[in-house]
Amino acid sequence: MSLEMNAAELEEFIAKVFPQIKDDFVIEELEEMRIKVRLKVQDKHLRPGGTVSGPSMFGLADVAVYFAIMAMIGPKALAVTTSSSLDFMRKPVAHADLLAECRLLKLGKVLAVGDVLLFSDGMEAPVARASMTYSIPPR
Amino acid sequence: MSLEMNAAELEEFIAKVFPQIKDDFVIEELEEMRIKVRLKVQDKHLRPGGTVSGPSMFGLADVAVYFAIMAMIGPKALAVTTSSSLDFMRKPVAHADLLAECRLLKLGKVLAVGDVLLFSDGMEAPVARASMTYSIPPR
Amino acid sequence: MSLEMNAAELEEFIAKVFPQIKDDFVIEELEEMRIKVRLKVQDKHLRPGGTVSGPSMFGLADVAVYFAIMAMIGPKALAVTTSSSLDFMRKPVAHADLLAECRLLKLGKVLAVGDVLLFSDGMEAPVARASMTYSIPPR
Amino acid sequence: MSLEMNAAELEEFIAKVFPQIKDDFVIEELEEMRIKVRLKVQDKHLRPGGTVSGPSMFGLADVAVYFAIMAMIGPKALAVTTSSSLDFMRKPVAHADLLAECRLLKLGKVLAVGDVLLFSDGMEAPVARASMTYSIPPR
Repeated sequence: MSLEMNAAELEEFIAKVFPQIKDDFVIEELEEMRIKVRLKVQDKHLRPGGTVSGPSMFGLADVAVYFAIMAMIGPKALAVTTSSSLDFMRKPVAHADLLAECRLLKLGKVLAVGDVLLFSDGMEAPVARASMTYSIPPR
Repeated sequence: MSLEMNAAELEEFIAKVFPQIKDDFVIEELEEMRIKVRLKVQDKHLRPGGTVSGPSMFGLADVAVYFAIMAMIGPKALAVTTSSSLDFMRKPVAHADLLAECRLLKLGKVLAVGDVLLFSDGMEAPVARASMTYSIPPR
Repeated sequence: MSLEMNAAELEEFIAKVFPQIKDDFVIEELEEMRIKVRLKVQDKHLRPGGTVSGPSMFGLADVAVYFAIMAMIGPKALAVTTSSSLDFMRKPVAHADLLAECRLLKLGKVLAVGDVLLFSDGMEAPVARASMTYSIPPR
Repeated sequence: MSLEMNAAELEEFIAKVFPQIKDDFVIEELEEMRIKVRLKVQDKHLRPGGTVSGPSMFGLADVAVYFAIMAMIGPKALAVTTSSSLDFMRKPVAHADLLAECRLLKLGKVLAVGDVLLFSDGMEAPVARASMTYSIPPR
């Protein structure tokens, strides 16, 4: 399978469909079945102490898998998350951006599964891992 | 085991430790090993179409388990989420509040596990289920 | 929705489709969207020390959700597990049977989600919790 | 961190502590924080149709993470699984062995987290992914 959208087309699609989040996320790298997405961490993403909040980490992992699926199947918007699991392993660095490295492990007709590692920018060990299952509506 | 804090004490603790979220959540019911928490859904919690976003659902489930643990062990603030799993089963009702019904299944010295069902206010079938594991620091 | 098979019909179906496991499991209770299943613990289910093994707990939770779905949609055999999450909370009692209390939280056209608590027979606190998602083939 | 046991020492430890499973699993590769384990698929691991059963896949993933932890911390035997999540993505090949590729994402004092991909021997796409959290007793 090859990409249906490149990074520029994907960002344009996101800006149209999710205008409220388009300034939070940057696509750093995109290839078949893989994507790297940056969360530009702002005050609204933080907990007391300055670390990135759990919901922000969930949101980044979820968005990374969604973007990877959209890049592969084209702008369909309607895929929805059905299951997720996350392990939180280290405290994110205060005030650093968060990077999601995602690969799609499965892209079926009905279900897609993505695997994500989250890193604080500049830190080698992952702060969290996530897997997300999306249901893809019939085309 | 019995409650270390009642609902009023718990809300006071939350207001002190998490001032930025205290207006989002209301404790509806609290008893030993069980809590019911309301997310007062506002624009920031919504996705296009008006339904509650995934990160907001994650955040509510996470907070409900955290509150239940604090109520049982007393104001220690430092418990951290280590694992979570969520299943998203139905679309939340647009613009309705979200309710979390949480019970603690385990409250050990080191780990606590909570189980959560999320409901749109007024709807009988759950929109999501979640389980959350917290690591509790040595006392 | 009402039951398509009662307990006797369900046991007959299982004996036909899964003859190799039919002697391991007993349906203790069955009602709409709920089932209680016993694992008759034998040597093959044990770890050193006599407690029930992780794979046996996984298998019991998985089977309970499968049985609950079959009872509701009728003998179709082909539903497959797509996702699962388990939390292991307490050590099972050595040599006691294991009981699964399962309720279906969702029974959609494509996906079903079941929630399970596992108990050692005679023990009040659950030894584990599980959730299982099944994909249901088009009818 | 470096290995406390090499592959031969690890196999000797397993044979002593888990004699009943030692013939099922082969350590194919072992390095710091990584292991590859083969399940020698036998009739007891199969479902009707000849594919590997869910409990057998769970068991292989669980064992792979356990072996990786033991290799890193030395023969302590007592680590226990506390949480797990699995996604089943493709049908295993009938009668082929199953391979687990595991890396430890975290090895803390109290908790360890491992990530696993499961493959049918000779097949490129993974049949399942798993993550497992272990609790490590105080030393």
